[in-house]
Amino acid sequence: MKYKVLDANAACARIAYKFSELAPIYPITPSSPMAEECEHLKNIGEKNLFGEKLTLVEMQSEAGASGALHGGLLGGVLGVTFTASQGLLLMLPNMFKMAGECLPAVIHVSARAVASHALSIFGDHSDVMATRSSGFAYLCSSSVQEAQDLAAIAHISAIKSQLPFVHFFDGFRTSHEIQKIETLTDKELLKLLPQKEIAIFKQRCLNPQLPKQFGTAQNPDVFFQNREANNLLYQKLPNIVMQNMEDFEKLTGRSYKPFDYVGDKNAKYVIVSMGSSVETIEDFLNNSKLKEKVGLIKVRLYRPFSKGYFLNILPKTAKKIVVLDRTKESGSVGEPLYLDVCACLNALDRKIEIIHGRYGLGGKEFDSNSVASILENLFANNSISPFTVGIEDDKTNLSLKNSNLIDSYTPPKEYEMLFYGLGSDGTISANKNSIKTIGENTNKFVQGYFEYDSKKSGSLTVSHLRVSNKPIKRIYEVKNADFIAIHNFSFLTRFKTLDRLKNGGIVLLNTKLNKKDISCLPNSFKKELIEKNAKLFVIDAVKIAGKHNLGSKINTVMQSAFFYLTNIIEYEQFLYSAKEFITKTYGKKGEEVVKNNIEALDIANEIEKIDIKNLTFKEEKFNEKKDIIKTISQRNGNSLPVSAFSVDGSVETNTSKLEK
Amino acid sequence: MKYKVLDANAACARIAYKFSELAPIYPITPSSPMAEECEHLKNIGEKNLFGEKLTLVEMQSEAGASGALHGGLLGGVLGVTFTASQGLLLMLPNMFKMAGECLPAVIHVSARAVASHALSIFGDHSDVMATRSSGFAYLCSSSVQEAQDLAAIAHISAIKSQLPFVHFFDGFRTSHEIQKIETLTDKELLKLLPQKEIAIFKQRCLNPQLPKQFGTAQNPDVFFQNREANNLLYQKLPNIVMQNMEDFEKLTGRSYKPFDYVGDKNAKYVIVSMGSSVETIEDFLNNSKLKEKVGLIKVRLYRPFSKGYFLNILPKTAKKIVVLDRTKESGSVGEPLYLDVCACLNALDRKIEIIHGRYGLGGKEFDSNSVASILENLFANNSISPFTVGIEDDKTNLSLKNSNLIDSYTPPKEYEMLFYGLGSDGTISANKNSIKTIGENTNKFVQGYFEYDSKKSGSLTVSHLRVSNKPIKRIYEVKNADFIAIHNFSFLTRFKTLDRLKNGGIVLLNTKLNKKDISCLPNSFKKELIEKNAKLFVIDAVKIAGKHNLGSKINTVMQSAFFYLTNIIEYEQFLYSAKEFITKTYGKKGEEVVKNNIEALDIANEIEKIDIKNLTFKEEKFNEKKDIIKTISQRNGNSLPVSAFSVDGSVETNTSKLEK
Repeated sequence: MKYKVLDANAACARIAYKFSELAPIYPITPSSPMAEECEHLKNIGEKNLFGEKLTLVEMQSEAGASGALHGGLLGGVLGVTFTASQGLLLMLPNMFKMAGECLPAVIHVSARAVASHALSIFGDHSDVMATRSSGFAYLCSSSVQEAQDLAAIAHISAIKSQLPFVHFFDGFRTSHEIQKIETLTDKELLKLLPQKEIAIFKQRCLNPQLPKQFGTAQNPDVFFQNREANNLLYQKLPNIVMQNMEDFEKLTGRSYKPFDYVGDKNAKYVIVSMGSSVETIEDFLNNSKLKEKVGLIKVRLYRPFSKGYFLNILPKTAKKIVVLDRTKESGSVGEPLYLDVCACLNALDRKIEIIHGRYGLGGKEFDSNSVASILENLFANNSISPFTVGIEDDKTNLSLKNSNLIDSYTPPKEYEMLFYGLGSDGTISANKNSIKTIGENTNKFVQGYFEYDSKKSGSLTVSHLRVSNKPIKRIYEVKNADFIAIHNFSFLTRFKTLDRLKNGGIVLLNTKLNKKDISCLPNSFKKELIEKNAKLFVIDAVKIAGKHNLGSKINTVMQSAFFYLTNIIEYEQFLYSAKEFITKTYGKKGEEVVKNNIEALDIANEIEKIDIKNLTFKEEKFNEKKDIIKTISQRNGNSLPVSAFSVDGSVETNTSKLEK
Repeated sequence: MKYKVLDANAACARIAYKFSELAPIYPITPSSPMAEECEHLKNIGEKNLFGEKLTLVEMQSEAGASGALHGGLLGGVLGVTFTASQGLLLMLPNMFKMAGECLPAVIHVSARAVASHALSIFGDHSDVMATRSSGFAYLCSSSVQEAQDLAAIAHISAIKSQLPFVHFFDGFRTSHEIQKIETLTDKELLKLLPQKEIAIFKQRCLNPQLPKQFGTAQNPDVFFQNREANNLLYQKLPNIVMQNMEDFEKLTGRSYKPFDYVGDKNAKYVIVSMGSSVETIEDFLNNSKLKEKVGLIKVRLYRPFSKGYFLNILPKTAKKIVVLDRTKESGSVGEPLYLDVCACLNALDRKIEIIHGRYGLGGKEFDSNSVASILENLFANNSISPFTVGIEDDKTNLSLKNSNLIDSYTPPKEYEMLFYGLGSDGTISANKNSIKTIGENTNKFVQGYFEYDSKKSGSLTVSHLRVSNKPIKRIYEVKNADFIAIHNFSFLTRFKTLDRLKNGGIVLLNTKLNKKDISCLPNSFKKELIEKNAKLFVIDAVKIAGKHNLGSKINTVMQSAFFYLTNIIEYEQFLYSAKEFITKTYGKKGEEVVKNNIEALDIANEIEKIDIKNLTFKEEKFNEKKDIIKTISQRNGNSLPVSAFSVDGSVETNTSKLEK
């Protein structure tokens, strides 16, 4: 089967495995699953394209991993590693060496914020950007499908160009987002494998038959000349990548370019961006009615930054450009991508206005509202530049306000779902399974994104799922859900669970309450149900799970209820797949467990529909005191403005008590 | 005494010592002497401005040094460290933390090439540039005097701005070049010490009386907002530096600005550069008659890069700018300083052409010829851009050719000297002492630069000395020597010793040959003596040193001969200082050694003048085969073009035999 439901880490790792002989690794969030996937493939006996198993070695740190990678390559071994954030920074000295010695390393990066005032395990491009002087080529994927496809193109291009590649995608967004993608077979990959250039590489490296030395020390008399000796490799690289992309397209039908352009061919306004944001922007441009002509340049080959390809794809009609950077370089005239675009356009005769801004730092949402704000600022005569988007900056006033341009946008028809679960209650595994079931058994496209609290086990998880007849390009949380499942009653009093419910949407609540007792639901919850004209269903999943000896694992019950209520696929088909899945997953634990789980699927008679017309509620006034910790605990951290925070990231101590 | 003869490492370290309480260190060439100087100051009982001795701790690596620095600062301790090259790269993760937490760290960097195709211990800006996304402020010194003065300004500005500083200067050039500078007294430094802001810093840090926490983990809801909370600090920083520079000028009379401008006020052409190159460019502009109006912007405060200050200092008449970068970022649209200038000028209404080039990688010479080439390219209608200068690039043809504009340049009147010695023969120590003697006993300015072979002991050393009535700004090797001393006869057959002799210059040769035997000098040497109308003197320093039981240490003899022949200072005055120096230096070794050395000074009757008119020579034809190793051994590595080198830096093995 060509289609699979995978996240980018898995999609990328499967390709890395195929093209590599050696993987010296050191785990760091959110890239660790790539190494884990490679280890899994090795354990199940998977072979790379050379008919061998990959050699995985865990080192003492990322510095060691990159050192071993460098050493392996010098010995003529095709090597790969996976990292992010500070891990990538620790590789920097060895990256300069690998680039200088023209070695075809590939580093796959789930791009993540570098710790500054605080640590963040979430995605932005500050790690990748902090290493951009290394001499590596940089290729950026903006979706799960691309993470697989460009991984292959990175490996092939590294070998053909004789230069190392960083291939990156947005950490904890693309890296952990599951989507239905078209996979690549070994047969296809073998067609793309550059056998001749691999032979040349192995011949060029250390080899007792043809002794040579690398890593000499050079004095001022000759260092500079030798430093210029590889210029041609960099000049040729963009064409090599382009050629590999064309070969790839012939084979798969999927088209990529060093820079891709979408939108109006005669655009006056152009957005330049990179990473998952380009999907969201493209979706907005495709589904909005704008008076202005707008286009988007997607940056895929970030280094070498090809001035020629960039100027070629930029419409001749462009008058004003906005460059978006998902990183912050304090003290710079502007962020890196903006600087590149300025230098590119410097050579032009015609004057093009360039503005720029930052978005998405530390995993901040970048959604259609952000795009609307960016466009309004782009169309304005007095644009804010540099700007920030997605936050409220009440200190330096760089942030863009929400824009009415959002009204010109009609989101694509997708079925959207939200699940509030408890860490370790099985909700996320069940949702992943649901999405896989839908994606791999129908011709529908699916997307799953899972929000974990950094407190892990026992705290909140939110699953954001979308199902659609077309590929899904909105790379942000579900904000207007057709269906919301609340797996734990305590959430109702802790934060707003229904603020993202669509009018007329379905709400599934796990509760002991039945029709008779339902009036004791919290006021704010009842109010929102009524205002949104919700269809409320309750189920006592804990009781059912207990009955079947499943303990606190309510996932089977809730999953069955979800399919029963939504009918995204035929409920019978779901039951069939679910039984298959349960047998496969719990088989090892014995027949009893399998039987119990299968019985727990039978929930049709356990669901009660509540008529919300009969509900009454009292108006409540909330204390709107802006306490940071409380606000964050109530899942309202996004609403905090810049001024709420200390300059140096310090916070008061003894704050756990405030969470209660 | 206000004037001292020091190198930049020493000048900078003396200031660092005064402003710091803690120095976690790890040695790396060419920055190690800074930590050594601090240790020396501590050992002789020197106190910092707070009346304490500096705490020095040697860590396990630069990663550890920066970690300890970070920790110390969080505890309210003023900290400093010293590093270069890969060492600085290893500090990068901690640099992001120190900047994010607004801690006033200062890192003094003897900027050095990052190893790529080969290792280089010599200077360029690739290390500093590879860390420019860290959020540190960057201050660059272009001379020894500045290395002292801006070190002070860096420490003061870090404390006042609440942000960390990298202060850097050209490694193995400025760091190891000795110059006569005006020193700063504790009394002066105390006037500049920001007592109030130090108190604020200590209050803000970790402190059991006022508990707070640093280093939290933040989720996507709040990370971005907090990341923007320090914008004002960066906006204010350039003004704080400017204010500190003005205060400094009031105190010392020495004027600095974030960007300094020299040259024609109505320049059409402007050079932008940073580091020691700006001295050489300034010297060229001051001493040449150009038809075109040219100016120079010296970048001192590189980060935050103040658009306002830059545009303010750029003449309104500027039509074309050349930006010079001492680094290479393969795959970028251009090197970092160029990108900054492009982005700065992007906002302007008027169109200014910007071209750019690389120079000085891995310590490559940047001299008046380089400036002439750059200017010719700048004045041309079809400028090469990007270009390289100082090398011959016959592969990608980026290099600039030598230019006739050098004829418009008249070098300042300076007495220039070259000494060819053997590693460990005492030549360099003697020359340093000579330069100190001249600089600290007369009102003359002095410069000493010492070329070491990376083979160290037993191989060639070249001392480049200049003496002048004015400050010396030519920051490159001596190329037209008034005086050349050859301390070892074997050099005559190994490479050209006289190609840098001025017409009519003095040559002092240590040899057993006397007037009678002198005709057996090598042909090429005799030819050059005659063509250059040289004044040749010989001395048998080995015999004299032997007579006085000094073994192979011929430095006392040769130094005395040098002062005797050149009369830069009264010979009697030299003898007086030399005796003083010998007594001080050799006192510990006993009276006998002191006596022997003092007796060895008496060389007046041992020098023979040779009448070169009587010399005859045969024309010789050299085999001009371009073998890399031979060419480098003959000190002709500079003449090798780019095509002589492998793309990946690899070289054949078993080449030592070729050196013989």
